Amino acid sequence: MCGIVGMVGVSAVNQRIYDALTVLQHRGQDAAGIMTSQAGELFMRKDSGLVRDVFQQKHMLKLLGNVGIGHVRYPTAGADSANDAQPFYVNSPYGICLGHNGNLTNARELTEVLVREDRRHLNTRSDSEVLLNVLASELQRVGTPRVTAADIFAAANAVYRRCRGGYAVVAMVIGHGILGFRDPNGIRPLVVGRLDDAWVLASETCAFDLIGARVERELEPGEMVVIDERGARFSRTDVRSGSLCVFEYIYFARPDSVMRGRGLHEVRRNLGKQLALEAPVAADVVIGVPDSGTPAAVGYAEGSGIPFGEGLVKNRYVGRTFIQPDQALRERGVKLKFNALRSVLEGRRVVVVDDSIVRGSTTRKLVQMLFEVGAREVHLRVSSPPIVSPCFYGIDMADQDELIAAGRTVDEVRRRLGATSLAYLSLEGLETATGPADGFCRACLTGDYPTEIPVDMRLAKLRFEGPPVPVEIR
Amino acid sequence: MCGIVGMVGVSAVNQRIYDALTVLQHRGQDAAGIMTSQAGELFMRKDSGLVRDVFQQKHMLKLLGNVGIGHVRYPTAGADSANDAQPFYVNSPYGICLGHNGNLTNARELTEVLVREDRRHLNTRSDSEVLLNVLASELQRVGTPRVTAADIFAAANAVYRRCRGGYAVVAMVIGHGILGFRDPNGIRPLVVGRLDDAWVLASETCAFDLIGARVERELEPGEMVVIDERGARFSRTDVRSGSLCVFEYIYFARPDSVMRGRGLHEVRRNLGKQLALEAPVAADVVIGVPDSGTPAAVGYAEGSGIPFGEGLVKNRYVGRTFIQPDQALRERGVKLKFNALRSVLEGRRVVVVDDSIVRGSTTRKLVQMLFEVGAREVHLRVSSPPIVSPCFYGIDMADQDELIAAGRTVDEVRRRLGATSLAYLSLEGLETATGPADGFCRACLTGDYPTEIPVDMRLAKLRFEGPPVPVEIR
Amino acid sequence: MCGIVGMVGVSAVNQRIYDALTVLQHRGQDAAGIMTSQAGELFMRKDSGLVRDVFQQKHMLKLLGNVGIGHVRYPTAGADSANDAQPFYVNSPYGICLGHNGNLTNARELTEVLVREDRRHLNTRSDSEVLLNVLASELQRVGTPRVTAADIFAAANAVYRRCRGGYAVVAMVIGHGILGFRDPNGIRPLVVGRLDDAWVLASETCAFDLIGARVERELEPGEMVVIDERGARFSRTDVRSGSLCVFEYIYFARPDSVMRGRGLHEVRRNLGKQLALEAPVAADVVIGVPDSGTPAAVGYAEGSGIPFGEGLVKNRYVGRTFIQPDQALRERGVKLKFNALRSVLEGRRVVVVDDSIVRGSTTRKLVQMLFEVGAREVHLRVSSPPIVSPCFYGIDMADQDELIAAGRTVDEVRRRLGATSLAYLSLEGLETATGPADGFCRACLTGDYPTEIPVDMRLAKLRFEGPPVPVEIR
Amino acid sequence: MCGIVGMVGVSAVNQRIYDALTVLQHRGQDAAGIMTSQAGELFMRKDSGLVRDVFQQKHMLKLLGNVGIGHVRYPTAGADSANDAQPFYVNSPYGICLGHNGNLTNARELTEVLVREDRRHLNTRSDSEVLLNVLASELQRVGTPRVTAADIFAAANAVYRRCRGGYAVVAMVIGHGILGFRDPNGIRPLVVGRLDDAWVLASETCAFDLIGARVERELEPGEMVVIDERGARFSRTDVRSGSLCVFEYIYFARPDSVMRGRGLHEVRRNLGKQLALEAPVAADVVIGVPDSGTPAAVGYAEGSGIPFGEGLVKNRYVGRTFIQPDQALRERGVKLKFNALRSVLEGRRVVVVDDSIVRGSTTRKLVQMLFEVGAREVHLRVSSPPIVSPCFYGIDMADQDELIAAGRTVDEVRRRLGATSLAYLSLEGLETATGPADGFCRACLTGDYPTEIPVDMRLAKLRFEGPPVPVEIR
Repeated sequence: MCGIVGMVGVSAVNQRIYDALTVLQHRGQDAAGIMTSQAGELFMRKDSGLVRDVFQQKHMLKLLGNVGIGHVRYPTAGADSANDAQPFYVNSPYGICLGHNGNLTNARELTEVLVREDRRHLNTRSDSEVLLNVLASELQRVGTPRVTAADIFAAANAVYRRCRGGYAVVAMVIGHGILGFRDPNGIRPLVVGRLDDAWVLASETCAFDLIGARVERELEPGEMVVIDERGARFSRTDVRSGSLCVFEYIYFARPDSVMRGRGLHEVRRNLGKQLALEAPVAADVVIGVPDSGTPAAVGYAEGSGIPFGEGLVKNRYVGRTFIQPDQALRERGVKLKFNALRSVLEGRRVVVVDDSIVRGSTTRKLVQMLFEVGAREVHLRVSSPPIVSPCFYGIDMADQDELIAAGRTVDEVRRRLGATSLAYLSLEGLETATGPADGFCRACLTGDYPTEIPVDMRLAKLRFEGPPVPVEIR
Repeated sequence: MCGIVGMVGVSAVNQRIYDALTVLQHRGQDAAGIMTSQAGELFMRKDSGLVRDVFQQKHMLKLLGNVGIGHVRYPTAGADSANDAQPFYVNSPYGICLGHNGNLTNARELTEVLVREDRRHLNTRSDSEVLLNVLASELQRVGTPRVTAADIFAAANAVYRRCRGGYAVVAMVIGHGILGFRDPNGIRPLVVGRLDDAWVLASETCAFDLIGARVERELEPGEMVVIDERGARFSRTDVRSGSLCVFEYIYFARPDSVMRGRGLHEVRRNLGKQLALEAPVAADVVIGVPDSGTPAAVGYAEGSGIPFGEGLVKNRYVGRTFIQPDQALRERGVKLKFNALRSVLEGRRVVVVDDSIVRGSTTRKLVQMLFEVGAREVHLRVSSPPIVSPCFYGIDMADQDELIAAGRTVDEVRRRLGATSLAYLSLEGLETATGPADGFCRACLTGDYPTEIPVDMRLAKLRFEGPPVPVEIR
Repeated sequence: MCGIVGMVGVSAVNQRIYDALTVLQHRGQDAAGIMTSQAGELFMRKDSGLVRDVFQQKHMLKLLGNVGIGHVRYPTAGADSANDAQPFYVNSPYGICLGHNGNLTNARELTEVLVREDRRHLNTRSDSEVLLNVLASELQRVGTPRVTAADIFAAANAVYRRCRGGYAVVAMVIGHGILGFRDPNGIRPLVVGRLDDAWVLASETCAFDLIGARVERELEPGEMVVIDERGARFSRTDVRSGSLCVFEYIYFARPDSVMRGRGLHEVRRNLGKQLALEAPVAADVVIGVPDSGTPAAVGYAEGSGIPFGEGLVKNRYVGRTFIQPDQALRERGVKLKFNALRSVLEGRRVVVVDDSIVRGSTTRKLVQMLFEVGAREVHLRVSSPPIVSPCFYGIDMADQDELIAAGRTVDEVRRRLGATSLAYLSLEGLETATGPADGFCRACLTGDYPTEIPVDMRLAKLRFEGPPVPVEIR
Repeated sequence: MCGIVGMVGVSAVNQRIYDALTVLQHRGQDAAGIMTSQAGELFMRKDSGLVRDVFQQKHMLKLLGNVGIGHVRYPTAGADSANDAQPFYVNSPYGICLGHNGNLTNARELTEVLVREDRRHLNTRSDSEVLLNVLASELQRVGTPRVTAADIFAAANAVYRRCRGGYAVVAMVIGHGILGFRDPNGIRPLVVGRLDDAWVLASETCAFDLIGARVERELEPGEMVVIDERGARFSRTDVRSGSLCVFEYIYFARPDSVMRGRGLHEVRRNLGKQLALEAPVAADVVIGVPDSGTPAAVGYAEGSGIPFGEGLVKNRYVGRTFIQPDQALRERGVKLKFNALRSVLEGRRVVVVDDSIVRGSTTRKLVQMLFEVGAREVHLRVSSPPIVSPCFYGIDMADQDELIAAGRTVDEVRRRLGATSLAYLSLEGLETATGPADGFCRACLTGDYPTEIPVDMRLAKLRFEGPPVPVEIR
């Protein structure tokens, strides 16, 4: 997961791109970057850290120009925060910068071709740098001395041919404008917005609300847009049916964003209502796991008639563990994230609603914490179906053998978590709340991937210590 | 507002003081500091910024010892974040460090005496440094070559005689142990806790939950405690009736803290319930202003039977405004903090519950934002009575002429805010939820201050441009 | 002026490149950088500041590999120290880094072609980035999938065809090795050295002494060398007669370097001896302007029989002027750099030897300082002829109208400087000490430039407020 | 060794103290600090590093006031550069800052008394902090509410009674002015200077030259001066005969400083002349070990009639060794500091003059380097007698068993160093050049200490592995 922004206006874009990145910060807190361009000059600032820490007054004063792109990065295993901060940049041809949300599944073989045939050097192990260099190579091939929108569309079409996986991209071609595109399956989101005097691209619509833009429309799967000072032009590749990551609906995107015309807070409340229908239970209070579980909890409360309460306080200023922890320090575990409210929970039968369970280790400690402050029963309700397969499209959740639901029955999971009862939303229930299943990538719930996954990647993430289970076969 | 921590244990205290400060971070995000002591050596780290930014691995490794104190600082006008970071330190007598939550009302005259008679130099304009030097002067006077708990109590009693205002204090006397005390009115809170092998002091009990301590008891108004390796000894001055700041109940303290035996989340939900009784209204949904308004909103929903909903999303990663804002940037105003959920609010009659209104400028924009996404009616409900007088005890909320409720009727305020209706909780309703009024400082609601306020301070904050109103006279 | 280093070895090169840069630091104190390569990966560290400040332990540990290049940068007007730090890098083709000593006279027109025809983006106003992109474009054109030494020589030959001015260059082609070359006039120096297991390139031989290398030979004007793990191959373009910058002999290079087989300390002592023959004077003591004037002063003392003395102490730790200086601060002027020794100078007739006079402002204050401590006579002797024309090849000394000797007689200069007498070395005397004039660029002394200078550059530097003087016409 | 400055003027002192510290930087490159005072407020900046790195524009702008002190620190074993940076500060009584050059021999017992009786906490292991607290304790005892010069003199007299060793001190008493004093033996220097509108104190007169001050006079051993806005008052304790450290003459102080009316460059040249008389040799060239050996080499050349030459180039930009050095890196040894000039030395009989030899390890490599570039003979001449005893007064040169001359004959030393011949200046010859021996501390040359040395200190530094030698007995 990452967040991307692009903007072309008639006045300085630095503050607005910065504002948009703060709103998209939930998509990545690892690193941030902005590149802008003016009169053929390029200005860049990127580093590891939050948006508010990376950009200081002295940096903003230098980010000149009325065109630019921005990126917030999600930490992934093995990445070097500072060096892998995006956007990336190459100076040939034309000067191109790029920010990327998603994951390429054929990055390894693309790298080989880039080095061997396109004679390009890659500085990092980031697949985003691979994507940039594929785009650059193609633009080198098709580009005319003064690059045109047609050249850029041609190069982006070649990217579609070469790059597999999930990717939403903003790129800036210096001296021309910006390019945005979504992969042919549309796994990662990208929206086009307008201000009176400017065009803007962003991962989510909530970024538009702050900067005062209105939604023009979502890019379709396989759709490209080139924006320069004369406006926006759109083009589209032959596309498969769209496969938007269903977890954008369930968890990733902000509740105040709108995707495919649906407000996500509403979607999540409906997931909770549906869950109340499918898995009712006699209880005294419904609580959510803050912040992401709250909308579904409110929905569950509505659907069940059981009153909603706040039973967990989230620690907003989590620190680090510096020293070799002794037993007492280790035990504080989940307490670093939450504190339970005895007055709400003591002696009560409690329904706890969360949006999903991945490994289950935090959930187990959370259940224990609720019992410790006196909850009489703890009924766990999950507003998504069990996660049984890993993601290859940019969500570094876990390998398959780490997923608590992979290869286990619901009751086996319940016992591991120590809950009084456990219920997941059904795949059908999910469809009721989100709309038709064939518009979504639900691979992590079904093992059914919308693109081919190379053998090396499958082996890396689909490993089990025990005998293989059915989900592996897909 | 600030947060303070002190700890004496049989093992290293650095990580636990750090943990406690992260939990108390809501009491001050401006600066943070820890001092520890071992074998007569003192170790210090303090700087402006959040706890997680101020302390790095290299600092923690040097904060040696099984005794220490910590502080998080609330920004106050005119303060120099880095230089005014606490704890403060003097090397004579003995070496004393001190962290302070509150405000002295006679700091100016104390300073004169310290310089003239006690021949001490003050480096900052912080009243906390004044307090430390009063304590040091008194300990110089009464202290024996090897300082004892009796010496320390004698010095702290002298502090009570000299210092006016509200103050909760932790101090470390190097080579001896730590001292905690609350002012005779008990305006600011301080709690004593225990682990198996350690004693701990903190502003709020929520700090104990994370580090695994249990509440021993709250310090009484005018009570002192000296903790060294042999344990804790308590002593008490002649005290006035306690006057705990009522806003600790209404807003400041974390909802998962317990004060005077009451869970604050419960208190706030009851404030909301009481408000529903006092000021009912026909509406479709009750929303809170996150995060602090949510418990009262849940209570209002319970009390009124109107469903609770999430209508506002809080921006967790607020950035800065770097450039001279144009009109469009200025207008985003409250959007930097919140975004409104159209799907929850459109076409609805909305009850918005907030814990308090100070100047009203944010609230006015918030009301406007709700109407903009389609709310049909906006009924503002405030879970505290109107704030009509400034605070002289450490809450730098505003001068009197900035308080929207000072000198105005409720309907005048409503019109300024643009709400469909407005109701505050009554002083009697407040008492119902908090317990007897005479245990609290409610000066900001009544103008009735528990201590004398020097004329110069009154003039500074109690100024009006128009003709004087009654509250000024007190 | 700048200093460059390149190295290919069988073990890590980071410490040795670092060592060599410290020895070449006199060629540039503005910024420093090292790039190394290992297994196709590139490592870089560069920043403004001295070598000892730019490189810390954490940087050195990451500069892996047995091939690398380094650079120290001389400050030039309008440059951004940090951004313009070298080496520069492009990722296409192959990945190329480059460090450059000198100046291109046709950088402006090269830039236009690079942007328009080669479709490359330039990030800085540095002519070194221009040079790198010319090399990259040519290598793009001629390079084979697996780049060979022949490809690199072909590209460097194209650089000779396109680039005008003075340039000594080290470049690293990632995955292959390093390239060194000097411009066809050989204006800037570059030497090839060997260790048992490594090849090394450096601006001066003094860098070899520290790292234990022996001189293999100087690169000839227009000569290129490609060094990879199999050794060094040389190639040469059609060249004009060599024109080594004569100021490398007089002032720039370290006295312990050897150029064209001559030790520069010896050369400078001979300049002083020759000056004693040409311009004798009756005096009591000969002093040099430290550090660079000392060898010539020792030579003058030898040649004249007047004893050598130390009359000036150089301040090794010069600071900055922070505040708006009042009269007293302004007057300290030259005292920031030197202090005069009364005991050596009082009542004496003093010969002061300096290597050159550019603007003359420091010299004037120096003469005044000598009189102030009691010198009876101050005889100024300059071990080079008058500087009358600006340099276009990388020595940013001054525009023509700032040169004190341009358009003035020696006696006019003497009066401005306030000296008892003044004599410069003659052009013939210079030749006696350096060897034949036609092997040198002496344009700043004669106005006779070895390459064509574009009109725009001439206009920029050859401006006069008064009527034009002959040197302008060339 | 350290450098100290104090200044009282009618205008801002920050730039001038800064300038003076840059000139005194040769006395300590480890850390630097300035404290100034204005209207009872104190301003401080100190850190590890050179003066030019420690003070930036933002710091200087805050160092307000027309009174202040400064310090440059010499690195000593076990010190923490940043924490031990001076000046030190205590806030009681009055607020006092202090900078110190020298060493207390009874710091350990003073510390015990300070903690036990004066009830003061010491934060560092620096004896300068001890000295400050002794001064503060005494001023606490004798000081009146408004401190007077008489109070300060009384306290400083008490310091004389309590503190043993060598110390030159500047202190600032906030709200009053500055105090300077030298220990009763006058081991460390301190000079009083004047500008038209200001008084200044500094370790050496060279600091006055830059800031335009004239020497008023040196403080006598045991003399104190208090300077405030009304001028300077002097006072003197009963003193022993003066014992200025003779190495201030031989090596430490800058050659352009004047001590006891003698210019030190002149003194050192005379040491060289005297050495030429005592230890003549047939040779072709005389070279000095730069920079400190050069004046004596010039004197030796004068005295012997053998021409002076520059045979060694000093590396001005020495770097660090980062990695585990292999054999080749280890061997570069002395080359990091110097490079030898083959053209001056090859085939010659060389006299090398240095000011002193401590451990001899650098000298041995230097001799070897001279032979390597072809010197035929290397005659080592040292312009001071053999160093045979350690220093307890602030020069952390070496323990006794590390001194190459301790317990060895001159010929044994010569063989260890590999020189053709070796001669030291005689004690009598030293006296000829410096003036009467009884005005100097020459303990490192004779083992005869001007103050009593506590047993624990003697044991720490006077240890031998072999049987004791005569010098130990003193």
